[in-house]
Order: sequence, then structure tokens, then C-alpha cells
Amino acid sequence: MTITATARNSGNDKTVIDRLQALLEEDLTQVETLLAARAKSPVDIIPDLSGYIVSAGGKRLRPLITLAAAKAVGGTRHSTHALAAAVEFIHTATLLHDDVVDESDLRRGKPAAKSVWGNSASILVGDFLFARAFTLMVETGSLEILNILSNASSVIAEGEVRQLAAQGKLDLPTEDYLAIIEAKTAALFEAASRAGALSGGSEEHADALAAYGKNLGLAFQIVDDVLDYGGATSVIGKVVGDDFREGKITLPVIIARRRGRTEDHDFWERALDIEKQTDSDLARAIHLIRTTGAAEATITEAEAYANLAKSALKSLPESPWRDVLGDLADFTVKRAY
Amino acid sequence: MTITATARNSGNDKTVIDRLQALLEEDLTQVETLLAARAKSPVDIIPDLSGYIVSAGGKRLRPLITLAAAKAVGGTRHSTHALAAAVEFIHTATLLHDDVVDESDLRRGKPAAKSVWGNSASILVGDFLFARAFTLMVETGSLEILNILSNASSVIAEGEVRQLAAQGKLDLPTEDYLAIIEAKTAALFEAASRAGALSGGSEEHADALAAYGKNLGLAFQIVDDVLDYGGATSVIGKVVGDDFREGKITLPVIIARRRGRTEDHDFWERALDIEKQTDSDLARAIHLIRTTGAAEATITEAEAYANLAKSALKSLPESPWRDVLGDLADFTVKRAY
Repeated sequence: MTITATARNSGNDKTVIDRLQALLEEDLTQVETLLAARAKSPVDIIPDLSGYIVSAGGKRLRPLITLAAAKAVGGTRHSTHALAAAVEFIHTATLLHDDVVDESDLRRGKPAAKSVWGNSASILVGDFLFARAFTLMVETGSLEILNILSNASSVIAEGEVRQLAAQGKLDLPTEDYLAIIEAKTAALFEAASRAGALSGGSEEHADALAAYGKNLGLAFQIVDDVLDYGGATSVIGKVVGDDFREGKITLPVIIARRRGRTEDHDFWERALDIEKQTDSDLARAIHLIRTTGAAEATITEAEAYANLAKSALKSLPESPWRDVLGDLADFTVKRAY
Repeated sequence: MTITATARNSGNDKTVIDRLQALLEEDLTQVETLLAARAKSPVDIIPDLSGYIVSAGGKRLRPLITLAAAKAVGGTRHSTHALAAAVEFIHTATLLHDDVVDESDLRRGKPAAKSVWGNSASILVGDFLFARAFTLMVETGSLEILNILSNASSVIAEGEVRQLAAQGKLDLPTEDYLAIIEAKTAALFEAASRAGALSGGSEEHADALAAYGKNLGLAFQIVDDVLDYGGATSVIGKVVGDDFREGKITLPVIIARRRGRTEDHDFWERALDIEKQTDSDLARAIHLIRTTGAAEATITEAEAYANLAKSALKSLPESPWRDVLGDLADFTVKRAY
């Protein structure tokens, strides 16, 4: 009963992911073994580069969701581990390609793989991991799971292209922003959660868990986007400004600009043109996002999706897994503070 | 009986691909419909860019092999068309990523997609097509086919990374060169042919057709590599020198350098260092490849693989399809003249 007690201890929100990792320790060990084994290759650059990014501070959030979704409706088996590893490989492949696309030299304060091995290796190792993800999925023996994840993968790419086309587009409607993050981020959370439910043996709860995953993914990305401007508190020392430097139009910027004075419009116009940006612009952007209340409003938006995620769980049978998934939704928003 | 007569008319070698296209016209129409339908996306860049490359002078060689392999051992059905389209999408995705990796502005004398839409769009649309390839394969309903193609895809990426690591490595052993082209090119021919056989309903002939595909792919790539230095005849006006400008070590260079005088070694050393290459170097490289007999020796090597491909067909039931696949192996080598 220790598990139940721990899972229900939602007071200690900072460690929901730690709790999930602890609850799923045995399953996660299987997943880690698969990740290490399937990134192997006689071509050294491949295990070197993928080891660098796969082991780089990864919380294994998506595999954890897959495993917990399966547990919540039935249980995990080898195919669930293969699925969870596949989901992590797809995520890793998109990170490797994103770094090249975004021309970002750092990922979470550490040199990006492409800064160490170059763009070409990052592209090709991403392709390799993507292919290996599908080999892993074949092991689940489920064409339905393959269909869910291959569809999600094309939606992710679509979202990334859409984001690319929206770069520096200051009049981006909120709806378009949401469509972009739904595709580039929430689609994989949704697929991980739906496929997890199916792998757990439940058709019945697949839609509910898919809705959970999608809304959790939206909340997660919205919080990520406000954290890039320091979140609610703007703690000094955090890695901020990646999106700003790349001219990405995210919700805090959309709201701050909408609420800003006319003279601030000119600032946003210039500062989000990556050719015209200056070093002091980020501080002003953070200031405007704070003073217009855009940071708070963004977090409120994330909270709404986190609540939708929690609501989706209501139809599931009561279990510590359902509880910890609910706590994860809360935690996703609390990261912003 | 028209089909038989045409298929057996191996005298007219220049048009084996035309003949294959004519023989498979109905099937190819289905494949083209799938290619157009599955490259669709509400994000305009995706159909624009993929339409540009998918329709850019594509001979549909790999889909033709898939279809002919299925015909040779049984017949084609919807799943064969889905498979053939998937194979073409995988090929297209690798071309899009190759252009970025190779930093090549031109593909067969036409601006590369990345020169028109940029590197980022090429990477992401490649990812999109790769994902759509897997969605198409799910429609074949065969986990075995998914396994074959996902394995081939990771092998292709491995081959590309290996080629990247071998760039400018003048002492590349012939065996390493062959391992690279087996992975980056022959693996997809092999998979297309094996999966085609399975889709045609034959487990029995899958190994033979896989061997055909692999050896055909090796012959095809070796000929491509010598054509990049003008082939046997060095016809003026051909697009040559792509590999040379990228510092790729291919068989004609390996042989020419091995047979060359000591002073030529210094030339190869400098000229295949892309930083030190000068405009007149390509002409000298072509001259050395001709005078050392390296061009002829390379074509002889390709011929050996083409013969292996033809031998592999012997165990198949007699049919116009078997004949035309044999003619295709001959044609692959005759392209060099």
C-alpha cells in the first residue's frame, strides 16, 4: 500500500515526476535498457551523439505518461516498454532536428548536439532514431499503435513547419499559436497516452487518456513558453530567451503585445525581427510581459488546459495511477511559479 | 501477349525504365495518386516543397521494382501500391536530408529544394514524408513489411553517417566504400524488392528478390558514382562533379588513386580537401580516372553486381516480369556508357 500512499501525497508537488519515476521504477528500467540497446550501432557517432542527448537530463516525461496510462487501465507488458522507448526516440529525433532548424547552440544551457557533432550528424542521427522508433513499435505487434504514432509524427512535422512559417509574424492569432503547439507538442503527448491505454489493454479508456495527454501537452508547452520569459517570478539564473532570440511568437508575446501601448508595438516589431534584435531587448520583453499581466494570463491559459486534462481522467477507474496523472497536470502548471 | 513481346524485347536497353513504366502503367497511376494524396497538408510549404521534389524528374525506380517484384511472384493489390508509395516517400525524405547534409545547391542540375525553401523546411518536410511513409505502410496491414522498411531506414541513416565520417578520407578501403553504398543505397532497393515479393504473396521468393534488389542497388550506386566523373565516355554537358566537390570518396577515386603515380597522390590529397579544391581540379580528376582505367574498372565492378542481381532471378518462375527485371540490371550498367 506504500504506492497508494505515495501516489496520493499530492502535497509535495515538486516531486510528481520523481514520484512517477519511483512508482514506475521497474518499468522504467526496462525502457532505459531498450533505449540503450536500440541506439547501438557500429558507426560510433550514432551511439555517441544519441547517448549525449538521450541521457542529457531527460525526465522521460513521455514514456512515464505512456507507462502510467497503461497501468491506469490494465497494466504494462513488454510491448508497453517498447512503445514507451519508441515515444522517447521520436521525441529525441525531433529535438535533434529542432536544434538544427532553430539554429540554437544551446539546449537547456548545455551545448546542443549539433554544436558538438555538427548539423549533418544531428540530422542523420535524428533520422536513425526515428527509424529505430518504428522498429520498436513493430515489436508491440499492434498496427493501431503504429498508426497512432506515425500519424502523430507527421502532425509534429506539420506543426514545426507551421511554426517556421510563423516566425516573426507578430499578428499571429492565438488560435494559430494553439494549433502550432497542439501539433508540435501535444500530438505526441496525446499519442503516448492513447497508445499507452491501448497497450494496457483498454479500448474503452483510450479516448479519455488521449484527451488527458493532449490537454496536458498544451498546458506543458504553454508553461514552457512563459518559462522562456522567466515564468511568473522571473528567477534570476534560469535559462531564458531561447524563443525570443529565434523570433518565435508565443502566447506571452501575443498577450503582451495586444495589451501594450502603441510605442511598445514598435518595440515588439523590431525586437522579434532576429536581424534587428539587440542585447538589451530581452530584459525589456520580460518587463513588458510582467507589467502587462501577460505572464499571469498565459499561466491562467495553461491552467485551463491542465484542468481539462484532469477532467478527462474522471471516467477512469479509481487508482493511484489516476491520481498521480492528475497531480502531474497540476505540477505542469506549478512549474511556472 | 503484347506485354510478353515488349518485356522480352531486351534489345532496346535505353528504354527499360520506359518499358517498366508502360507495363506497370495502371499500378503506377495508383501509386502516383497515393503520392499526391499523402503529401497533402493544410500547411502550404509541405505540398509545395514535396511536390517540387516528388515530381522532379523522378523515374520512380524503387516503386517500379516493388511493383515488378510483386508481379513476378503473384500480383499487385492495394497494399502493394501503398508499399510502393511508402518506398518512394522514404527515398524522397532521404534526398531532402541529403541535400542539406551535402550542402548541395543543385540536384541533377536543378536548384535543390533547400535552395528554394531553405534548410529548415527541407529537414522538416523530409520528416513529414518519412512519417507519412509509415502511415502508408500501416495500410499494407503487414508488420513484416513495416519491420523490413523500418530496419532499412535505420540502415540508410547509418550509411549516411558513415559516409559523412569518411568524407575526404582518401585511404578509405574499397570494403568500407562498399559497406557505405550497401547501407545508403542498396538497403532500400533490397527492402523494396523483398517487401514487394511479400506483398505479391510469396514468402518463397522473398530472399531471391531481396538479393536481386541489393545487388541491383550496388550496381546502380557504383554506376552513379562513375557517372559523377562522366562515366566511360565523359559526354560533355552532363552534370558532373557533385561528389568531387563534396569530398566524397567513391570507387573511381579509390581506384584512380591506387593506380596513380606518387605525384598524383598529392593532387588527390589536396583536391579532395574541399577547403583546398580549385576550379580546374575536376578536369584533372576526370582525366586521371580515365587514363588510369579507373572508370572502366569501376564499371566492371558494377557489372559484377548486376550479374549477381540477374543470377538471383533464376529461381523465380519464368515470366515477362522476371525478364524485364533482368533487363533492368543490364540497363543499370549500360547507363555508364
